[in-house]
Amino acid sequence: MPEFRQNMITKDWVIIATERARRPEDFKPKEERTITAVQHLASCPFCPGNEDRTPPESYVLERDGRWRVRVVPNKFAPLQDSLYSERQQVGRFLKVEGYGIAEVVIETPRHDLSLATMPQDHVHDVINTYVARYRQLSQNERIILVTVFCNHGPRAGTSLEHPHSQIIATPIVPPEFRDQLFKSQVSTDTYGSCVYCQVVTEEITHRVRVVEQSEHFLVVCPFASSVPFEMRLYPKRHCSSFGAITDDEAADLARVLKRSLLRLYIGLDNPDYNFVIRSAPTDQPEVKFYHWYIILRPRLTTPAGFEMGTGIYINTTPPERCADFLQAVNVDEDQTSMEFSP
Amino acid sequence: MPEFRQNMITKDWVIIATERARRPEDFKPKEERTITAVQHLASCPFCPGNEDRTPPESYVLERDGRWRVRVVPNKFAPLQDSLYSERQQVGRFLKVEGYGIAEVVIETPRHDLSLATMPQDHVHDVINTYVARYRQLSQNERIILVTVFCNHGPRAGTSLEHPHSQIIATPIVPPEFRDQLFKSQVSTDTYGSCVYCQVVTEEITHRVRVVEQSEHFLVVCPFASSVPFEMRLYPKRHCSSFGAITDDEAADLARVLKRSLLRLYIGLDNPDYNFVIRSAPTDQPEVKFYHWYIILRPRLTTPAGFEMGTGIYINTTPPERCADFLQAVNVDEDQTSMEFSP
Repeated sequence: MPEFRQNMITKDWVIIATERARRPEDFKPKEERTITAVQHLASCPFCPGNEDRTPPESYVLERDGRWRVRVVPNKFAPLQDSLYSERQQVGRFLKVEGYGIAEVVIETPRHDLSLATMPQDHVHDVINTYVARYRQLSQNERIILVTVFCNHGPRAGTSLEHPHSQIIATPIVPPEFRDQLFKSQVSTDTYGSCVYCQVVTEEITHRVRVVEQSEHFLVVCPFASSVPFEMRLYPKRHCSSFGAITDDEAADLARVLKRSLLRLYIGLDNPDYNFVIRSAPTDQPEVKFYHWYIILRPRLTTPAGFEMGTGIYINTTPPERCADFLQAVNVDEDQTSMEFSP
Repeated sequence: MPEFRQNMITKDWVIIATERARRPEDFKPKEERTITAVQHLASCPFCPGNEDRTPPESYVLERDGRWRVRVVPNKFAPLQDSLYSERQQVGRFLKVEGYGIAEVVIETPRHDLSLATMPQDHVHDVINTYVARYRQLSQNERIILVTVFCNHGPRAGTSLEHPHSQIIATPIVPPEFRDQLFKSQVSTDTYGSCVYCQVVTEEITHRVRVVEQSEHFLVVCPFASSVPFEMRLYPKRHCSSFGAITDDEAADLARVLKRSLLRLYIGLDNPDYNFVIRSAPTDQPEVKFYHWYIILRPRLTTPAGFEMGTGIYINTTPPERCADFLQAVNVDEDQTSMEFSP
């Protein structure tokens, strides 16, 4: 029986469409994928030796005299930091110069890895880099929102194969997010505590959608998942800004993020995905009503006209089945022993 | 110079990203597409002769003893009309049985056509079918929203080649749409008239984004377009429900919808697209503050993590250039003489 389910925070509805249900196994590509990526590609602008093909670094994490993670301004930046953020009227329409900061995080010298397959200590370096850049960009008084995200694979909107993620800092909080903040605030007014903390408690109580719990994080396929195998990584400690993550939490996040991505990599044969770190606006980093988290969505299905027209997603695989499937993937073998010689 | 632009109604922002600007011509596929579709396919459930492979019709439009347009319940319906629409608590979460009505509009007996290439009088039959079903479904007291939409091509989320569109009637107004209604109402409180009527006037005054004007419709690439070649078809007469369209308007809509789709078909070599008819909830069909319209989006680009995290779309082609390009496509040759012998 199909059902509507409501996201407790945004009040968005999804349809869990059992009549066209697909089993988790059905999402595996029919043919084995051949992964042809090489460790180093001479023509790749992100591979070692081609450092002059990117703009100068805004941040670099080195070890033994070699870079492990580089952050560079986005050469094809959708926003620029030389512009103004004053609003302008064009007749009745409103526009603003495209002020903002867009950076690329080159996650590793190795061309053929991803956050799923690189050693855990290297994922930790990447997380630490996100944190460092997040904190730095948050200091900028013209910036109000810092968004860290990763597009993995062509269906997720990237054409560059070399493992990388992105950071975009904007002078604008979009109304969709402002609305989410407002609803969270009303919920906190009503119930006296953060609605995300309540979701964490609720999912731990229900148990049926939990993929993994670590000391500091809960990984779930959310009750009102928009797409099959959607996951959310919630920090258990109430904290509204990603910039306030502790060292212990960052180390733990590296572990659970890698394991979550590895579940997709092994279980669904390296699907394309996006993840994004949602964090409070930088002008009110620590508030009682908001909670930072990571949303992770594999790109296995195609939203169509109904989603476009209504915002209601039709999801063909119940999150309970997805959580079961993901949880059963064996990620406990020592993957970190993977050879790593940049 | 990149810029943020705001949608006057939803207050959503988009980034018009000139630094990674793509010319309209760049969206044409590199290789000529071979269209292999045949007029009739024995294995297609929507082709004549296979009528027993679909559920019985809820509506059929016939001429000379043959069907021209058929409406059937969706065999793989994401919603079912035998269920209940009462809310249920699952702990703190909320769900509802998937009550609703999902129908497929088989637009023509011909397997190889689309709304762009079929004769205009046949598009008129399809529009009349939409109107008839919209009116019928609106009468259902458990239904509050009727959404007519079309998914054309695999990138737009359809796997069936035979030309068809869909109608989904739900007992729920999603919060995103409710929010849009609320903002429209506040705007009408403020300015004394419908904000969509103002957008129509504004776009006609600016002229730079107008693709076409007919007696009853305005076709524009909107100021804050989310994606390249996005178009909106606005009725010029204030009217909040699609169900209240007049016969004259329906005939005119058939003409401008076909011409708009033909611009894409010729100019961009038959790209995949979605369109959706947005119309007021059926419990308040005629209101001063809302205005029905069609949103049409070709699927030429891939929204990625930034769009997912913020709702801000990065659009690489300014709507002014898209409008120029689309307007210049020659759609005045007599396309309606296309042979049509089902």
